[in-house]
Amino acid sequence: MLTLLPIIACGLLALAYGAWAVRDLMAADPGSARMQEIAAAIAEGAGAYLKRQYLTIGAVGGVIFVLLGLGLGWLVAIGFAIGATLSAAAGFIGMNVSVRANVRTAQAAMRSLAAGLDLAFKAGAVTGLLVAGLALLGVSVYFLVLTEGLGFSPSSRTVVNALVALGFGASLISIFARLGGGIFTKGADVGGDLVGKVEVGIPEDDPRNPATIADNVGDNVGDCAGMAADLFETYAVTVVATMVLAAIFFAATPQTLHALQLYPLAIGGACILTSIAGTFFVKLRPNSSIMGALYRGLLATGGLSVFALALVTWLLPGFGPIAGAAFSGTALFLCGIVGLVVTGGIVVITEYYTGTGHRPVVSIAQASVTGHGTNIIQGLAVSLEATALPTLVIIAGILAAYGLAGLFGIAIAATTMLALAGMIVALDAFGPVTDNAGGIAEMSGLPKEVRQSTDALDAVGNTTKAVTKGYAIGSAGLGALVLFAAYSQDLKYFIAQAGAGTYFWGVTPDFSLENPYVVVGLLFGGLLPFLFAAMGMTAVGRAASAIVEEVRRQFREKPGIMAGREKPDYSRAVDLLTRAAIKEMILPSLLPVLSPVVCYFAIYLVAGGGVAGKSAAFSAVGAMLLGVIVTGLFVAISMTSGGGAWDNAKKSFEDGFIDKDGVRHEKGSEAHKAAVTGDTVGDPYKDTAGPAVNPMIKITNIVALLLLAVLGH
Amino acid sequence: MLTLLPIIACGLLALAYGAWAVRDLMAADPGSARMQEIAAAIAEGAGAYLKRQYLTIGAVGGVIFVLLGLGLGWLVAIGFAIGATLSAAAGFIGMNVSVRANVRTAQAAMRSLAAGLDLAFKAGAVTGLLVAGLALLGVSVYFLVLTEGLGFSPSSRTVVNALVALGFGASLISIFARLGGGIFTKGADVGGDLVGKVEVGIPEDDPRNPATIADNVGDNVGDCAGMAADLFETYAVTVVATMVLAAIFFAATPQTLHALQLYPLAIGGACILTSIAGTFFVKLRPNSSIMGALYRGLLATGGLSVFALALVTWLLPGFGPIAGAAFSGTALFLCGIVGLVVTGGIVVITEYYTGTGHRPVVSIAQASVTGHGTNIIQGLAVSLEATALPTLVIIAGILAAYGLAGLFGIAIAATTMLALAGMIVALDAFGPVTDNAGGIAEMSGLPKEVRQSTDALDAVGNTTKAVTKGYAIGSAGLGALVLFAAYSQDLKYFIAQAGAGTYFWGVTPDFSLENPYVVVGLLFGGLLPFLFAAMGMTAVGRAASAIVEEVRRQFREKPGIMAGREKPDYSRAVDLLTRAAIKEMILPSLLPVLSPVVCYFAIYLVAGGGVAGKSAAFSAVGAMLLGVIVTGLFVAISMTSGGGAWDNAKKSFEDGFIDKDGVRHEKGSEAHKAAVTGDTVGDPYKDTAGPAVNPMIKITNIVALLLLAVLGH
Repeated sequence: MLTLLPIIACGLLALAYGAWAVRDLMAADPGSARMQEIAAAIAEGAGAYLKRQYLTIGAVGGVIFVLLGLGLGWLVAIGFAIGATLSAAAGFIGMNVSVRANVRTAQAAMRSLAAGLDLAFKAGAVTGLLVAGLALLGVSVYFLVLTEGLGFSPSSRTVVNALVALGFGASLISIFARLGGGIFTKGADVGGDLVGKVEVGIPEDDPRNPATIADNVGDNVGDCAGMAADLFETYAVTVVATMVLAAIFFAATPQTLHALQLYPLAIGGACILTSIAGTFFVKLRPNSSIMGALYRGLLATGGLSVFALALVTWLLPGFGPIAGAAFSGTALFLCGIVGLVVTGGIVVITEYYTGTGHRPVVSIAQASVTGHGTNIIQGLAVSLEATALPTLVIIAGILAAYGLAGLFGIAIAATTMLALAGMIVALDAFGPVTDNAGGIAEMSGLPKEVRQSTDALDAVGNTTKAVTKGYAIGSAGLGALVLFAAYSQDLKYFIAQAGAGTYFWGVTPDFSLENPYVVVGLLFGGLLPFLFAAMGMTAVGRAASAIVEEVRRQFREKPGIMAGREKPDYSRAVDLLTRAAIKEMILPSLLPVLSPVVCYFAIYLVAGGGVAGKSAAFSAVGAMLLGVIVTGLFVAISMTSGGGAWDNAKKSFEDGFIDKDGVRHEKGSEAHKAAVTGDTVGDPYKDTAGPAVNPMIKITNIVALLLLAVLGH
Repeated sequence: MLTLLPIIACGLLALAYGAWAVRDLMAADPGSARMQEIAAAIAEGAGAYLKRQYLTIGAVGGVIFVLLGLGLGWLVAIGFAIGATLSAAAGFIGMNVSVRANVRTAQAAMRSLAAGLDLAFKAGAVTGLLVAGLALLGVSVYFLVLTEGLGFSPSSRTVVNALVALGFGASLISIFARLGGGIFTKGADVGGDLVGKVEVGIPEDDPRNPATIADNVGDNVGDCAGMAADLFETYAVTVVATMVLAAIFFAATPQTLHALQLYPLAIGGACILTSIAGTFFVKLRPNSSIMGALYRGLLATGGLSVFALALVTWLLPGFGPIAGAAFSGTALFLCGIVGLVVTGGIVVITEYYTGTGHRPVVSIAQASVTGHGTNIIQGLAVSLEATALPTLVIIAGILAAYGLAGLFGIAIAATTMLALAGMIVALDAFGPVTDNAGGIAEMSGLPKEVRQSTDALDAVGNTTKAVTKGYAIGSAGLGALVLFAAYSQDLKYFIAQAGAGTYFWGVTPDFSLENPYVVVGLLFGGLLPFLFAAMGMTAVGRAASAIVEEVRRQFREKPGIMAGREKPDYSRAVDLLTRAAIKEMILPSLLPVLSPVVCYFAIYLVAGGGVAGKSAAFSAVGAMLLGVIVTGLFVAISMTSGGGAWDNAKKSFEDGFIDKDGVRHEKGSEAHKAAVTGDTVGDPYKDTAGPAVNPMIKITNIVALLLLAVLGH
């Protein structure tokens, strides 16, 4: 009780920071009436979309809530509702801040680049700290209520199931939000560009394009709300898995259990403080790059987190030996450092692969000179290659943390990695704000310099967005063993508890690679990210086609639009995309929800049912969980990094790209057109299919855990 | 002895069929002097390339030969040499037939489509039966020499190591040939198209394009010689792995060992007969499609193989119970049927995903209407989606075969699948012949109808090429467990044999997914196909750029080329590509050779060395073998199917594509240009990176087996 209160205080402090920053933001100049009008249209569209999305998810969630309540008890169902509601809230509030910050950023950018960065980053920081704060509060308060309030043992099934259900709620929102938002934003972006840039030759964000408001709405519902929900679930699921692991490993020594269940929460709380501190380091100094300013903030957070981690370790398990554990507190502290180092490694590698000026992006820009085809070939090569180094970093992280403190050490490394989410999300969420600001500047005819400022911010945003996605999926890779361990240990628990005649009686899972059911599970799991990504890409293609037709129709029926005499009907495009995105997100989202269940029962039947069938099926489902991570990691990293690289290769042409023969290729050149094609391909790669793989992996894992709970009930 | 002779006779019959077909081919009319001149230039270039490639591989192979001889004895080294030499021979002879058949096919196509198909298919059948025949002969004759001739026990280490080394020799040739040939052919294709079609606007195979001979050379060295080496190694490795498994499982019951080691060889022999029979069913009847004619041949082979399989089962293990085995002969027979069904399933699915007229290809053609970007997005979506059904078929095959006869059943299913290689390769190898015939028709100015005939044959060739690649990688998926079992059983053998103080003393590998070293191994293995594919794509990009510059230079320095007054210097492009391909193939080829060794020693050191380090390292290497298959399967299928679909989507425009709104898009339209971009991207996907993943998987597995042998020596 005593140690949970400061943690909860940290969570509340995150909300307080948010409130303070929002007040500060709202006090800024919202610009001219025209700018406010555009911003209002964006805000209205985003609000309408989110309302519809949450209503749809609400219907699915309501059914699951009742099923969980009936199957596993209402405390579990409430956990699910808390996770879902808070995840939705993080996205909803973040988006509302974003749609207010965009116009103010555009206005501030008229004054200076530094002022623009300041406002945009502040808006991002609100989202970031809300994500971290709400996730921490959700888990810790409900844990407090269940243990201190209702008196359940911290290692009891009720507590474990309720926490897992909380993670499930967060994941469910997250996959819908990532996919729905991703389909909306990229359908608008790709479709709008195809008609606007390619067919009629008007620039991006031109007010004559009927899809332009939809494009800006998309930035908010996809890159802001979708991303926030994603990171919320990554944070919550990792912390929950670590707590569940502690409950399983240390049930016999209550004092150790207490310390080690609070430890991940305390790390989260402490890193909220360091994240808040870090935000104050993000200032654009003279002669410093935008990226430099952002990295200064991240470095400050990372550096302070080392001390925070030391403090938390000292307060909770202590640096000495831990009763009932094979490792010391010092080892756990070092595992936390491993998490920080992995984060740093992934940031640096992603920046290398997606940042302008480095070999990968330059090679794509260079390949654009010889045409569309070579641009895509080189982009795909970069996207495939970009998986190698992050995987090696993750492998090193697993080996180091395991060597220090076994499985629980890996869990602590993953937790520490995600404890920085407040700061990392801040770096990401400032992207859509600047993207929107650029759109508003363009549409309201602000001076060209404003657009230049917002474009500079936006280019950095492309890289930070790729960084966040690499970070989220990297944590899933690091957490692979933790999620699998949660499953296998849970399974062992149920088998140990099983009396004669009960479901788990006599079950003997065999997770050896020599077991064919394990290989089948690996292959089946490995298939899911590919199929899921295919569905996401196809959905964007369909949504974009619908937009192409709508925009062409408006141009045809309202010939005055192109001359600037008639106003396009922006809301039709928004409405059309809303319907398309909601419809298209359902089926792929159900894939990871249903797969563990289908896999279990299919293998159960194939293996002849009975105890042998159960053993085979549990083994296959376990392997499926690893299979989905093994291929998912590569699919996600390649898509998000490749997409970011394509985007910035295109941006290389905005100021003229000088190729290896010294020839300068301007905006509008053939090479630039090829680069635009690459960017179009990269859009669904990096903003729809790729990032949605992360929540997909988590859902598969969590549904498997719930399946165990249901079968054992 | 008695039962090996008929098997060897079957192998010789395959060679005899080849000799007969070649005589028949050579008797056909080789066309006009101009046609022969062009064909001679292609043959010369292909010969020069292969010579250089084999010299380079010879140098690498010589070093390995000596290392194997010193490390594991000269009988093992000779096995390696046999595998390498025969694999090279299959490619070399096949290519020599192909470069003679092309001009005759062009000439025959002047008479009729049926006559063209007849010659082209006959050329393909020569390659196909050479591949199957030489592989079967290599394994069975060397096995005969070792056991009957030199008196080694069939389950002795010398025999096992010699067979594994034979597989390694085949694999090593195969990866170099696939990669080198793939880089050559696609460098020429992409580079030539970029300048020819896009920049100066001349059609494919126009004699004014300096890269046009190189493009046709590429068809032979990549699609013919490279593919033949690939299938040779797939065949040899699968048969060898099955025999090794038999040696390990049934060493205690010599009679069963004898029957079950000969059984895979006998299946191979019997299916050579059914493949030869099947070739006579490939006849273009009135009102039948080309694909129909080919499928009739395949179906005939498949149907006859059921009876052949029954006969072989009756003769060798018999249909009843098998002494010392947990399964009956009937079960093995049914496993063979499983292999045939899996083959059929993969053929049908690949045809669906890559054939013109089905949803996937039509959707890519339709997406081309809205531009380059949507063409690529849809193509990538199709390529990702195309992995799902083949994987499910493979999963079903694993489950069925395992249920019938355990691991050995899976091995028999994979063997039977590959026993059809003679026919499947025939379907594939006819592709480059028709592709070349089209080129010769174009360059020598034959009537337009000839080109139409060869184009029709070529479109079918695109699908059959994708089918072969899907089949090869599918067999690797089915064989995943067999290859892993060969490793894990071998490891067990060495541990059981180890005396105190020897290398394997006290080693306890743990292949459970709960072991972090296993997860690390899975991730590391999973990384390899991505990195390898990235290297292949980049290499093609570089080779294509070099060709673009060379072609531009020739156009610049010889202005008479475009007017038809000056002859381009074809040999420069061939020579340039030869050097580029040889240089670029080295590094990626070494990746799978070195990875198991690096993985082993890295984990050994990380895990603290000693017995614990060895146990961890052996576990990680085993997991790596499965990891490389799990992601490799998806990478390879998505690339080969996606590439085939892009190619045929482009072909949809040749006769005008009618989109969903009823608008007709002709060749040369904007939509067609977008489809050409997709085809360009698909080229390295389907002909370089994708297919090379298959030998890459095998090499990783075989090097791991050799590593065990070396450490145990």
